[in-house]
Parts: sequence; C-alpha cells; structure tokens
Amino acid sequence: MAFSEFRPLDEKSLREYIKAVPSLSSKLGNNFDDFTIKEVGDGNLNFVYIVVNSAGSFVIKQALPYIRCIGESWPMTKERAYFETLTLKEHGRLSPEHVPEVYHFDRTMSLVAMRYLEPPHIILRKGLIAGLEYPLLAEHMADYMAKTLFFTSLLFRSTTEHKRDVAEFCGNVELCRLTEQVVFSDPYKVSQYNRWTTPDLDRDVEAVREDNLLKLEISELKSKFCERTQALIHGDLHTGSVMVTRESTQVIDPEFAFYGPMGFDIGAFLGNLILAFFAQDGHADEVNDRKTYKEWILKTIEDTWNLFHHKFIVLWDEHRNGSGEAYLPEIYNNPEVQLLVQKKYITDLFHDTLGFGAAKMIRRIVGVAHIEDFESITDASKRATCERRALDFAKKLLKERRKFEGIAEVTVAIRQLQY
Amino acid sequence: MAFSEFRPLDEKSLREYIKAVPSLSSKLGNNFDDFTIKEVGDGNLNFVYIVVNSAGSFVIKQALPYIRCIGESWPMTKERAYFETLTLKEHGRLSPEHVPEVYHFDRTMSLVAMRYLEPPHIILRKGLIAGLEYPLLAEHMADYMAKTLFFTSLLFRSTTEHKRDVAEFCGNVELCRLTEQVVFSDPYKVSQYNRWTTPDLDRDVEAVREDNLLKLEISELKSKFCERTQALIHGDLHTGSVMVTRESTQVIDPEFAFYGPMGFDIGAFLGNLILAFFAQDGHADEVNDRKTYKEWILKTIEDTWNLFHHKFIVLWDEHRNGSGEAYLPEIYNNPEVQLLVQKKYITDLFHDTLGFGAAKMIRRIVGVAHIEDFESITDASKRATCERRALDFAKKLLKERRKFEGIAEVTVAIRQLQY
Repeated sequence: MAFSEFRPLDEKSLREYIKAVPSLSSKLGNNFDDFTIKEVGDGNLNFVYIVVNSAGSFVIKQALPYIRCIGESWPMTKERAYFETLTLKEHGRLSPEHVPEVYHFDRTMSLVAMRYLEPPHIILRKGLIAGLEYPLLAEHMADYMAKTLFFTSLLFRSTTEHKRDVAEFCGNVELCRLTEQVVFSDPYKVSQYNRWTTPDLDRDVEAVREDNLLKLEISELKSKFCERTQALIHGDLHTGSVMVTRESTQVIDPEFAFYGPMGFDIGAFLGNLILAFFAQDGHADEVNDRKTYKEWILKTIEDTWNLFHHKFIVLWDEHRNGSGEAYLPEIYNNPEVQLLVQKKYITDLFHDTLGFGAAKMIRRIVGVAHIEDFESITDASKRATCERRALDFAKKLLKERRKFEGIAEVTVAIRQLQY
Repeated sequence: MAFSEFRPLDEKSLREYIKAVPSLSSKLGNNFDDFTIKEVGDGNLNFVYIVVNSAGSFVIKQALPYIRCIGESWPMTKERAYFETLTLKEHGRLSPEHVPEVYHFDRTMSLVAMRYLEPPHIILRKGLIAGLEYPLLAEHMADYMAKTLFFTSLLFRSTTEHKRDVAEFCGNVELCRLTEQVVFSDPYKVSQYNRWTTPDLDRDVEAVREDNLLKLEISELKSKFCERTQALIHGDLHTGSVMVTRESTQVIDPEFAFYGPMGFDIGAFLGNLILAFFAQDGHADEVNDRKTYKEWILKTIEDTWNLFHHKFIVLWDEHRNGSGEAYLPEIYNNPEVQLLVQKKYITDLFHDTLGFGAAKMIRRIVGVAHIEDFESITDASKRATCERRALDFAKKLLKERRKFEGIAEVTVAIRQLQY
C-alpha cells in the first residue's frame, strides 16, 4: 500500500503511487521515464486516469467521497470502489471475454487498477449516437448477462453461498439508495434534482407525477429492487457502461452492484437501446436518414433478448443436476415440469425486464441524469419530440408490460410510436 | 459469563450456572435453597428448563449443535440461539404483550433465559386438540403479526436499516436451509425423512410427487422464501410456537427468524389452524361432536386475517409520512393512489399467505415433522381420512390461491371439503 490513509490523487501524486506499487510499476516495465497519465473521467461519479508507456498500460479509477458530477454537496461513500472491484472480479471470472481484468485494488485509497481498453474501444452510447453498427454486440451482451446472472443465482448456487454474498453486498447500500432515489422516486415527485427539456415537456413531466397507475407499477418494481436478492447484478448496465469495437464488448463500472433482480440489468441495457432508437430522428440529416440504423437497433434489441433467453436456458439445462438450490433435480428433472418452470421463470424475467427498462427510460428524460443520446440534439424542440415519444412508450411499457408475450411484440410497439 | 466455552448443561451444571450469573440468581432472590429445575423441552430442537423458587422463575433454553428430535446425525448450528434472542428482543420491543421478555443471553453457551409463562399457559396446539376456545387469540395474533411485520419492513424502515438487518440475519442460513428442505423440497421428492400414515396415504404421497402444477407453484414460493427480504419474520409460526390462556397469547421460539416474505408467518399460523380444523373429526366423540368448535376455528381463521388486514392498514396510514422507503409521502400521499397501492400490497400478501399456508399444511402430512393434532388420532384409518381432506384442500389452495378474493371464500372452501 502506497499511502496509509485516503487522499484524492492528482497526476503528480498518482505518479508517485504507481512507482510505489510493484504490480503497477511492473506493468510499465519499471520504466518511469516516458509514461503518460491522462485524466478521462467523463462519467458521473469518479476520477479515471489512463496510464501508458512503451511497455504497457492500465486504467486507474479512484472513488471520491462524493458524486463527481454534482460535487461535494452530494456525499457518496468511496467504499463503492470495493464493491466495484469485487464485482469486476466475480463477473470477470464468469465472463472473462467481456469484463476488464483487475490488476490492483487499494481499499484505503478506494482505487482500482484494471486493463486499459485501448482504441478503437469507445463507449457504446457514443457509437450509437454516431450511428455505428456492432454486429457482435447482442451476442456478447447476451453472453455476459446470461453467465453473470445465472451463475450468481440460486439456479446454480447453494443457499449458503447465496446468503453469504447477499450479506456482503448489503454493504453497498449507499449506491442502492442512490438508484432508489433517482430511478424509482425522484421522477415521480417534485425534486430539486429533476431536469427536463422545458417548456416543451412541462406538461409531460406533470403527467408523470399525476399518473396513479404508473406510480402503482413503479412501486412494485421498487420493492423488487429493494427486496429481491435474485442474482449479483451490475446495477447500472446502460450503454454508457459498455465499451465496444466491432469485435469486442467490455462491461465496465459495476459500482452499483448488489444482489437484486436480474431484470434490472437486462432492462437497463434494452431500455437504453430503446432510448438510442428514439434519439435517432434527432441525429438524422441529409447524408444519413438513420432509417437503416434504427432497424439495426431494433434487431439488436430483439437479438439481445432472444440470445440471452437461449443462453440462459442452455446454462440451466447444463447445470440442472448441479447444486443450485432453486430447482432440485430429484423434483424437477422430468421434461414436462422442467418446461413448465423454465417458461414461468423466463416469462416473469421478461416482464421484470420490460418494467425496469421502462423505469430506466423515464428517469433519463425527467430525472437528474440525462443521456448524451438526447442531450446532443441541440434543437430543443426536436429533442423534446424525440424525448416525448420515448417517454410515452416507456409509460405504456411500464403499465402494460404483462401483456407482451415476446420481444418482437415490443419492437412492433416501438415502431408504432415513432411517428 | 459462567463458562468460558460451550458445554451442554444438565440440571446439576445448570444449577451452578444460575448461581454464577447475577441477572439469573437475582431473579431467584439469590436464594438457592429451594429452587427447582424441570426439563420440559418437548419441541423438536432444543433443551428447555423451567427454574422456579418462592422468589421468582424463568425459563432457560439451550441450543445444542444438532436437532434434538433426530439426534446428532442431523447437525444444526447452535448459533440459532443468537438469532432467536435477537428476534425475541426485536419482536418483543414491537409487540411486548405477546413476546416473553429476555432476561439473559450467553452466546458462548447458546443459552437464553426468558420469562416463564406460568400455568395455565399451554401450547396452543394442545388447546386446539382439547377443543378449548380462546376468545382473544385472533385479536392477539393479528396484533403481533401486524406490528412485527409492518415495523420491520420497508413500509416503516429506511433502506439503510433494512440492509443492515438483512445482512445480520443472513447468518441464520442453516435454519433457513432446514426450512427449504423440509417445507419446500422433501415433500415433493423421495426422502429418507418423509413419513405418512401408511398404507392409507401411499397413493396420495405419490400423487404429490407426480403433480407438476403443484411443483410449479411450490418452486415460486421457495424462490420467494429464499430471495424476498420483506420483513423480519418469525419463520416457524405454527400453533406449537404460541402459548395461550384465555387472556394471554405469547409467541415463542423464533429461532428460524430471518428477513423473508411476510406471508410465510401469516400462512404458517392460518395453515396450522386449518390443520387443527381437519383434525377435529378425529377427536370427536359421543360427548362432543366438535361441530361448534370447528365453527370457532373457522371464525378464528377469518378474524385473524381480517383483523391483521385492518391493523396493518391502520399502521400504514399512521406512518405514511414516516421514513419508510417503499412509499414516499411526496409520491403516494393522495387518497386514490394510497388506496391502489394498499389494495395491491394486501392482495399479494393474501395470496402469499394462502400459498405458504398450504405448503406448511402439506409438509405436516407427508414430510418429516408431523403434528400432534393428527398424531393423537390413534385410529390410523380415521387419521388418514382427516389427513387426506387436509392434503386435498392444501393442494387446491396452493394451486388456486390467486382465485381467492377474501378469507371468507377460503373458509367456504374448507367447509365444502369436510365431508
């Protein structure tokens, strides 16, 4: 350990820190003459540095005891770096192709060092705004979600392992509370942090606050988020937590991780793809009307769910004689009951996914944290039109999610709302 | 602490222990000449001693590292005494009229001393077998359940308090696993521990193991039991965990306590009342046909649920501007939405209650632990008839619970199955 107590690093002190930590300095071939440090934290919460020299590279992420994008007025435990690291390691073990390797963790400093995702890796959200297609994205995300969610659930785990890990991640309560507030509460009430495209969406925002059926549904999802310890979820799996090239898909930033409902992760990803879809009209121009790209997004939404569903069931079938507590082989190993329980499990998960996806969409339009997909549409009236379509769709999805029987019905409904 | 390491006590060593512990010896007026110790543990798990002299009295309960009724071949952590004590204290704080006071706890010895529930207190189950009416039972149990469940849920608690306590009670995993096995698994498969009235119920037991729809339903309840941290539940709230007189109702033995679904407690109590109902025909004789008593049991079932419902909603309304995370006042404080969310919450809880109640009934007929209500019917064929009616009703309740809209519909269905 390089420092005996916490201090926020800057480029200069980080340089000293790296020299003092063998696992980091060895990555640079112990050559400290030519290495460069660049601060790149464009997220909402942390400081992120890229460290590179001719021998190697890594990323350093340090959590400060407040939320970076708001400032010291919104304190937030720096212990989140510990839970992020635990999750990077556990999800990395389960899905090594899609999670960056952890090189070093320093709990005192709330600092984690991990693989630098070199160019041309970019944040998926930026790729979606630029209109870039990622042919392997659905396959990769389905694989990551199927593995991380299946193997940390009671479909694979014993209750002993499950309760031990649930207890550990109860420690990440401050990050859970942040989600409870900004996803499940603030958008449905007057809050100093809420923002929206005004005055265009003023009535829409009010309508959300006055919609009793919407509040009924969001309360059910909030209870599931707070009470259902289904799997070790990423907790913030939007398109800004994924880095991509055409060949590679890497999931980063699991500092919100805890034992929660699987649908919260799948919904976050699909919901943000739907937001990207509704933002496309704001990015269309004479050169590119984005019509083909919109179809690609819809196909990616369908493929992600369908591939996830397939991979999840394959894992279940492979491990149905394992030690998972939920469906003991002596009870459930006949084809008919196996089909029944899997169908019910997936149907419930699908409806959770749509509900949480809708909740994540709504909060990005009327809550504190907006997304570049919409924010980069400079014409406010055009942006409001895109946002209103997305909001209307999300409200419908949240209230009527149990009527949808498959993902194709969802993309049909999205198409119907686009004009 | 009287002993520096764990040892099972007998009457002689307990005598020395009491003398060495001031909080206990003072209860006896520090007079050790005349005090008597009587071992009375008739439960399945522990050793229980009643200690009395002219100055005072108390009960000593010691957990040994195995299950008493099975023996050392079924090990079980003695740490359960710690979780029992935690829960006696917390539930006792919330419902002091219905939980015996804790005088002393010794974690090393897995020993708890508490109020002796003096005669005429008897175990409720024995009263039900004897055909005794308890006019305040429904009111008292409704009060106990409403308070303990409401105040330990997110209707009253902040997420911070909730996750802290959830984490603590994850430590009681061995007792949770025991319930998972004997309630949710063993009855639905071949298990060395299962027992039933044979040969009369052989076909019925087989039918349970071959009923795919029943297995589908029990899997959903098992998942809720393992994953849903709704409130600090007693975890074993059958009629053997309640001591009564005509005026007093005392809930004991919460060693299975953890953060689980509320319906598991309410269902355990109502399910065991339904079992008591179906056992009555086996206790009828020329002197007493038990018809009036059966009506009293049905009324007690209805009253318990209806009073619980009423009291729970009163607590919710009283505390709706409090710090409970689930329904923030800024969002839910309009009469229309308040009605909507309360109706949904109670409907879901009602169906959980019926499902868990049914599961607890089934396991008492085909699983390892039977109940005196049936066991005391010496004529096997008569007993089998009573058990079969109860089993058929429980299967129907488990599979069709969502069709029941109120407790009166349940008692109507019970009546229909009695002949």
